[in-house]
Amino acid sequence: MNEEQKRTDINTLGEFGLIKQLIAPFTIKNASTVVGNGDDGAVIYSRDKQFVVSTDLLIEGIHFDLMYVPLRHLGYKAVIVNLSDIYAMNARPTQITVSIALSNRFSLEALEELYAGIRLASEKYEVDLIGGDTTSSQKGLVISVTAIGEVSPEKYVLRSTAREGDLLCVSGDLGAAYLGLQFLEREKKIFMENPNIKPDLENQAYLVGRQLKPEARRDIITYFEKNEIIPTSMIDISDGLSSEILHLCDQSGLGCNLYEEKIPISEEVRTAAYTFNLDPTMCALSGGEDYELLFTIPQEDYEKVKDDINITVIGYMTALHEPAVIITKGGNVHELIAQGWNAFRKP
Amino acid sequence: MNEEQKRTDINTLGEFGLIKQLIAPFTIKNASTVVGNGDDGAVIYSRDKQFVVSTDLLIEGIHFDLMYVPLRHLGYKAVIVNLSDIYAMNARPTQITVSIALSNRFSLEALEELYAGIRLASEKYEVDLIGGDTTSSQKGLVISVTAIGEVSPEKYVLRSTAREGDLLCVSGDLGAAYLGLQFLEREKKIFMENPNIKPDLENQAYLVGRQLKPEARRDIITYFEKNEIIPTSMIDISDGLSSEILHLCDQSGLGCNLYEEKIPISEEVRTAAYTFNLDPTMCALSGGEDYELLFTIPQEDYEKVKDDINITVIGYMTALHEPAVIITKGGNVHELIAQGWNAFRKP
Repeated sequence: MNEEQKRTDINTLGEFGLIKQLIAPFTIKNASTVVGNGDDGAVIYSRDKQFVVSTDLLIEGIHFDLMYVPLRHLGYKAVIVNLSDIYAMNARPTQITVSIALSNRFSLEALEELYAGIRLASEKYEVDLIGGDTTSSQKGLVISVTAIGEVSPEKYVLRSTAREGDLLCVSGDLGAAYLGLQFLEREKKIFMENPNIKPDLENQAYLVGRQLKPEARRDIITYFEKNEIIPTSMIDISDGLSSEILHLCDQSGLGCNLYEEKIPISEEVRTAAYTFNLDPTMCALSGGEDYELLFTIPQEDYEKVKDDINITVIGYMTALHEPAVIITKGGNVHELIAQGWNAFRKP
Repeated sequence: MNEEQKRTDINTLGEFGLIKQLIAPFTIKNASTVVGNGDDGAVIYSRDKQFVVSTDLLIEGIHFDLMYVPLRHLGYKAVIVNLSDIYAMNARPTQITVSIALSNRFSLEALEELYAGIRLASEKYEVDLIGGDTTSSQKGLVISVTAIGEVSPEKYVLRSTAREGDLLCVSGDLGAAYLGLQFLEREKKIFMENPNIKPDLENQAYLVGRQLKPEARRDIITYFEKNEIIPTSMIDISDGLSSEILHLCDQSGLGCNLYEEKIPISEEVRTAAYTFNLDPTMCALSGGEDYELLFTIPQEDYEKVKDDINITVIGYMTALHEPAVIITKGGNVHELIAQGWNAFRKP
């Protein structure tokens, strides 16, 4: 890295100057954004839509490690994880607010990198930055994003409305983000021990990309709309498949049968899992951060999804008070347990 | 303080158990809250209203000091400062999301105190808690609140729409929260030097109360509605009168004449200012955290506000490119400068 880069002390700008400079390049894209940034609040309005609201807090040292997460990617990901929640309600994200707290070890140029990533995501997903707060912290970087989306009235999809017999489906493939993280952690450890060794991540572009620059599944929501599918329940996969299936089961009051052989796992994940002596299925079940969509559809909609390469049927919902189980490739039946990422888990 | 209080380690609950327990006592009060907590997002809808969105980030050691801020008050204030922004748009707050990051030095009981304050504010101001995030931090407490409000279409009030000749008005009185803070800081210093000396704040209930438990001016918005007043511009006073007047002037492209003798300052503020060898007017101009409303009205609305004890006319807006000035009691004219609280100001 070029250490001769320009470094502007953020203290020289003041809070208002800083916000103005960071927000200047953003444009408004949605008709529902009546008033954007620059006042006590933003104004949003849509006569024909309902709004969906979701929020996430990202803390340095807990949710991200700036040793290997570039600020531009971090800004991008901070937006994506919130958009993913909006899609998981079957809605389209339209606005975001972004609040940042940072210590004065960050320069204006570093902040601009972070906002470049935020802008990239907001342009790609066509959401408007309508507000936020920028302040200092005693230690570390804090990012708080609130996302707002629009959905046609009564078209939103909850976690609690799956029905017995519904097919359990997932988008994309699972476990990649978790294995990407394992490579990043390994290279960090090597680098800490010997800073002269260059990180070797070239062959892991897919896995590392899934960790550092995830995407939200807008395409799946579009597919639903085109094919007149309204899932009976939906959730996004941030904490691992197990944990999210258990949320759907708990909140819908149902059990489920999950088939191990059906879980979509890429070749890259299988290869990498063996490198780390991990079970690929466990990576999918407990890895997290895939930001895929997990949803249920009525059996009569099977024809509508069976040929789509982005959607895999992995099981079905069973009766009230049945357990949530995984049927292994060997035919064994195990109860699903949530070993997903827990922010309060002791190290 | 009773050190024998129950202390439940938050690690024993896990993220989901923790959120459930904290959120259980909250009830839904607004028709526009279609879906509240417990899913990927909340759903809000109002056919006849526009929504206003505002967000604030509060960081321990920057925005609050737990040495003298009780957690219940902190929770209350974190909500109030956001509601104040919604009122400053001439809207009525209806929903909030609250995200918390905290280190494991906090017990469940401490968090419950914080949420008791959040609940108190949300009940008093009739807003629904519709979402949030609870996670750990490496150090200190972080609170991120997003507030949503409703306003009849086109009734929202911006900072940028004041007109020449409009009367500049302020609600309540100014400078009290700043002087309350001075007392708290003084008692903290005394306590640090000698922990056996009891804090002496009994006679400063008004000032300390304004600092620790501020209110948002819902009554003023109600008064506007009853008296058919729509301010031409409005902002809430979080950073001190000077700073906020300059925002209105800058964003409206106007100047203003502010009369020192008109600035509403309570007897408690005058007395306390002299105790600290401060100028009461400076406390009002630069103190901040009063959460009063600063607004402009057309001259023809003067009759509607002149007899209201909660509203004071303190000056008027002057022509484009005129400066923003204060006319002192002695008849001198000084340009207003913003010395308000700046999160990035060096100590």
